[in-house]
Amino acid sequence: MKSDRLTQQLQFILEIDRLKQILRQTLLTDGSRRENSAEHSWHIAIMAIVLFEYAPPEVDLKRAIQMLLIHDVVEIDAGDTFCYDTQGNHSKADREEQAATRIFGLLPPDQAEEFRQLWNEFESQNTPTAKFAAALDRIQPFLHNQTTQGGTWKQHHITRDQVLQRMQPVAAGTPELWEFFQAAIETCIKRGDLQRV
Amino acid sequence: MKSDRLTQQLQFILEIDRLKQILRQTLLTDGSRRENSAEHSWHIAIMAIVLFEYAPPEVDLKRAIQMLLIHDVVEIDAGDTFCYDTQGNHSKADREEQAATRIFGLLPPDQAEEFRQLWNEFESQNTPTAKFAAALDRIQPFLHNQTTQGGTWKQHHITRDQVLQRMQPVAAGTPELWEFFQAAIETCIKRGDLQRV
Repeated sequence: MKSDRLTQQLQFILEIDRLKQILRQTLLTDGSRRENSAEHSWHIAIMAIVLFEYAPPEVDLKRAIQMLLIHDVVEIDAGDTFCYDTQGNHSKADREEQAATRIFGLLPPDQAEEFRQLWNEFESQNTPTAKFAAALDRIQPFLHNQTTQGGTWKQHHITRDQVLQRMQPVAAGTPELWEFFQAAIETCIKRGDLQRV
Repeated sequence: MKSDRLTQQLQFILEIDRLKQILRQTLLTDGSRRENSAEHSWHIAIMAIVLFEYAPPEVDLKRAIQMLLIHDVVEIDAGDTFCYDTQGNHSKADREEQAATRIFGLLPPDQAEEFRQLWNEFESQNTPTAKFAAALDRIQPFLHNQTTQGGTWKQHHITRDQVLQRMQPVAAGTPELWEFFQAAIETCIKRGDLQRV
């Protein structure tokens, strides 16, 4: 065992603890506080196991889980950009690229490369596994907003079209679930939890 | 797709959100607040990926990650029992068994069984995968205590022997790392972060 290597690995492990302090817009299901990106990542990793049967056959579950666990780590430097914030999303890619270089770069080079590839795959959305992962990353806040009577949607006056667009990765990554969530969006509108226009 | 089945799965997914409110004794590495069990589970799942090279060859990484993600879900009903609380640990097994039955029982029967088996395997500590998972579950709070100048150890007047005993799963699950952590314990004592007796 090379102790330099272990030291680098432990440094990365300690650094990512900071993701527990990055707050998302999403509320916990009881509405008591905003969710942080570490617990969000935990939640969607479990969702990958539970909802794997709806994934297209090419999806690699282990890789999807790994991707979901690390996909938000860049927010330690880049912050969480609210998905409906047009201006923030303009500069998001650059900020996150730099963050990926620094944070994954704490690891020994072979692992830095492995994590970077996982992250790149998620960001590029070119594989069935990345698409499945992205679908879960959209379904989870949807469920939270639905459970908190519109939660973030109401706070930010989000409309049906914005949510439909935001949920497109569900159509792409878990087509079998798309009809269910389309119907769920309409139910949210009927209940008054989401604005029609 | 059977919608009853999906409804059960979504109910489980919403229920486990409550793990984000279960506080552990461990502090975040900057000492600002106590960690919750959801973010702890996320952290050790990533640690499984990073430290997998120190696992004995029989360890199944995918299964270890799944185990780590769900191992604390029972705390939603049973609470987090502080590891050095002798009285609390007396009733822990019963409380957690009941919690596992209720919470995993929200899932469709085949998945309830799958999750229960993962949890049982972790609790029984009879396989190399469960032992590897348990080692990570001990290493993470150790790193946090080390980084917060003794954190929980100081608060509760924990001694070297208690930590050595608590860290035994590291010797069992990742023998290659045991020497490193034994030395780290001694360093903590020298620094005054952990009581010798």
